[in-house]
Formats: sequence, structure tokens, C-alpha cells
Amino acid sequence: MKNTPTIILVYPQLGENIGLVARVMANFGLDDLRLVSPRDPWPNPNALQASAGAYDLLHRARLYSTLDASIADLHYVCAATVRPRHLEKKVATPREMFVSLTECKWGILFGPENAGLSNEDISKANDLITIPTAPDFGSLNLSHAVAVCCYEWTQVQPLRISPKDHLSPLATKKDVELLLDHLETALDQKNFFLPTHKREKMIWNLHSIFQRVHLTEQEVRTLRGIIKALSTP
Amino acid sequence: MKNTPTIILVYPQLGENIGLVARVMANFGLDDLRLVSPRDPWPNPNALQASAGAYDLLHRARLYSTLDASIADLHYVCAATVRPRHLEKKVATPREMFVSLTECKWGILFGPENAGLSNEDISKANDLITIPTAPDFGSLNLSHAVAVCCYEWTQVQPLRISPKDHLSPLATKKDVELLLDHLETALDQKNFFLPTHKREKMIWNLHSIFQRVHLTEQEVRTLRGIIKALSTP
Repeated sequence: MKNTPTIILVYPQLGENIGLVARVMANFGLDDLRLVSPRDPWPNPNALQASAGAYDLLHRARLYSTLDASIADLHYVCAATVRPRHLEKKVATPREMFVSLTECKWGILFGPENAGLSNEDISKANDLITIPTAPDFGSLNLSHAVAVCCYEWTQVQPLRISPKDHLSPLATKKDVELLLDHLETALDQKNFFLPTHKREKMIWNLHSIFQRVHLTEQEVRTLRGIIKALSTP
Repeated sequence: MKNTPTIILVYPQLGENIGLVARVMANFGLDDLRLVSPRDPWPNPNALQASAGAYDLLHRARLYSTLDASIADLHYVCAATVRPRHLEKKVATPREMFVSLTECKWGILFGPENAGLSNEDISKANDLITIPTAPDFGSLNLSHAVAVCCYEWTQVQPLRISPKDHLSPLATKKDVELLLDHLETALDQKNFFLPTHKREKMIWNLHSIFQRVHLTEQEVRTLRGIIKALSTP
């Protein structure tokens, strides 16, 4: 499967969970693990021990200091979250989501054990996935959430959407981040984000719109042209 | 769900895994855990610690000295195993198996961490289920195997959850058309659509972006605010 998902653990806390994640990825044939600022020093002997032999996958795991950097080369990212969020994004189960994926480089974000993904983290994702759990005991162990997603991935028969469906290739996350930076700078010059205390939430909402639309490279260029044209006096 | 499966751990070794099993059962709404001769004394503090609060389920877990005793009251039992066995039994994936279950009292057997179920244990089961895994790294963590089965069970008999897809109402087509008219007018004032013969296609492309993102009413207001802010000298 060319488009096997990348697993991105954002601020993971326990080395043991990282090891269990590596193990279950190897069980289901996934091989690209990325870590964003793990709490404990890396490499972590607890991770190796819990991986039950998935050493090669752990040794190849890439370390990043920011979420943005960790997903820069991907075309599509979904965020795994248990809680309904006050962001306008599609929410689907892994089963619903995975069947609709195109042949792009894609990944799944998982948050830290204690708190899950922040709204800012989530704003970087195209879509949300939620594994349906009991309302009064909904918080899955990190490695269990990854296990379910990996298993579900092996169960779906992805729809192979022809590359012709996209006239231009999908933009990378880096392209979209640069577009959003451009927009933010242009809006700052017009003092758009007022009052200041609402700035952060307004920016998340903007990210949310432009991440979930799955922009192509050409569309990113078009939107940057629009920002430039509109803000030129 | 009348026929929620019973989970039977046969000779489990690590208290931590028993706790993780209890946690994921509670996550997916299962509540009947049975233990056949766990290696370490029961109750096991490691199990309580790993259960992340699923104490009630652990306290109600029943202890048996033999596999036969643990399944005596059930009508149907399947055995989870990773390896093909030289036994004449139906082998199915959890997905294939669970959809065919009738409303009886039923359970799933999971073997010990080091060796899995023996052929004798397996001979007590009606059928086998196998979670498909990588041929060269097939051995799932015990709690991961239970997690996948519990998850798969909820997918057959869905839990009632209703993630709020949209907190703010979706914009009407009329709202989106007005937004696009606004953008088009602002861009015309900046002579954006040049050369003229490309104008029509450029406008289609803009429509394509903003129609497929399923904007909410609030997002349409935000985007109109942005167009106004950017195009104000």
C-alpha cells in the first residue's frame, strides 16, 4: 500500500507507549513513525523494551521540535480526538475516513496521554477522526487508539481515485502553512485581528477553513495571488 | 446491547495488561471480564494502576481456575489466535465473525502473552478469529488484540454517539454565492483576472475551492470580513 499512513505522536509522555505504538504499527505493516517533542529524552530505553522487537521502526522514527515541521511534507493529515471540538471540521470514524483517502502522503496526529491534542494542534489537520467510545469512559490509551487506526487501515479497501481527479497535485502542509502565514501577515497590516485577545481563535478558525478544503498546489498559488492583489493599494 | 461479548483472559501474565484490557473494555462499553488462573496474585495493584479508572470493571472481574469453568454459562465462544492451527475450525476475522453472531451469551478467549492459547484451550472454542497482521511481525500485544475486538464489536453494534459536525449552521448556497460575488468584485477592482480570456476559468476555480469546503454561516462572515479588510487601502 503506497499510501500507508504516517503516525505522528505529538508531545508523547511515556516511552512505553511509544514502544507499544511502534509494535502495533509493525504488526499492521505501517513503518513511518514521527515524534514531536517527546517529554523524555530520545532514544528512550522504555520504548525499546515495550516494542517487543520493533527496533528498526523505532530507530528510524524521526524527531521534530514542532508539529508544523513534522507534517511539512504530507498532503493530508487527520487528527485523532475523543472530544467534540469547537472547530468547524469534518468528524468521521476511522472507517468512514480511510475509505475516502486518495493516493497522497498522509498521516494521523495523536496527542499526549494526559490532555490530547490542543485546539491549535487540531487546527493544522484537514479533518478529525473520532473512535466511538463510551460517553462516560471515552479516553483510550494512546497505543490502543493507534492500534484501532492501524487495524482499520488494513481493513479498508481504499478507493483508488485517479490522479486525473486532481488537475494539479495536492499542496503539501508546508505550502498551506506558507499561504496561511501570508494571509496572517496581510491581515495584520490591516489590523484585522482585533480585539487582540480574539486573535488566536480567529487564526485557528482560518486554519480550519483552509486545511479542510484539501487545496492543490495550483489553488495555493491562486489564493496567494488573491491575497497579494487585494492587499496591493 | 444484550449480547455484548465476555472477554476471557486465559492464564494472563502481566497485571498491567489486565488493567489495559479492563480500560479498553470500558472504553467500548463491554463489562464482563473473566480471568483464568492469572500468573500473579489477584487482585493485582498493577492492573488497577493500568486501568486508568476502570476499577469497577476490575473489581467485578471473575476468577476461575479452569477454562471450562470460565465459559460454562456461555452459549458461544470464539478463540483469538494469530497462528494458523491444525484444527478443523472456522477461521474468520473479527469483522466477519461478529456480524454473524446471534443473540446469545458469548465470549472471546485470549491466551497468555508468551505463548497464546494452547491447542487444548482452542479446542473448547466454537470458532477461531484471527486479526490479520504482518507475516513477519504478527504477535499483537494482548491488550491491543482485545482493543481491536472491542472496537470491531462496536462497529457491528454501533454505540450511539453524535459528534456535532457543525456547531454553527452551514451557509446556504446563496450566502456562498454572495461571498464569491464579493470576492470577484474586489478582485476586478485590482484587475486580477488577466488575461481576460482566462477570467471564466479562474472564477470557476475559485468557486470550486469555496463550494467544496462546506462553509458555515460564521465562516462566510469571516471570509467577507477578510476581503473587506484586505481591499481597504
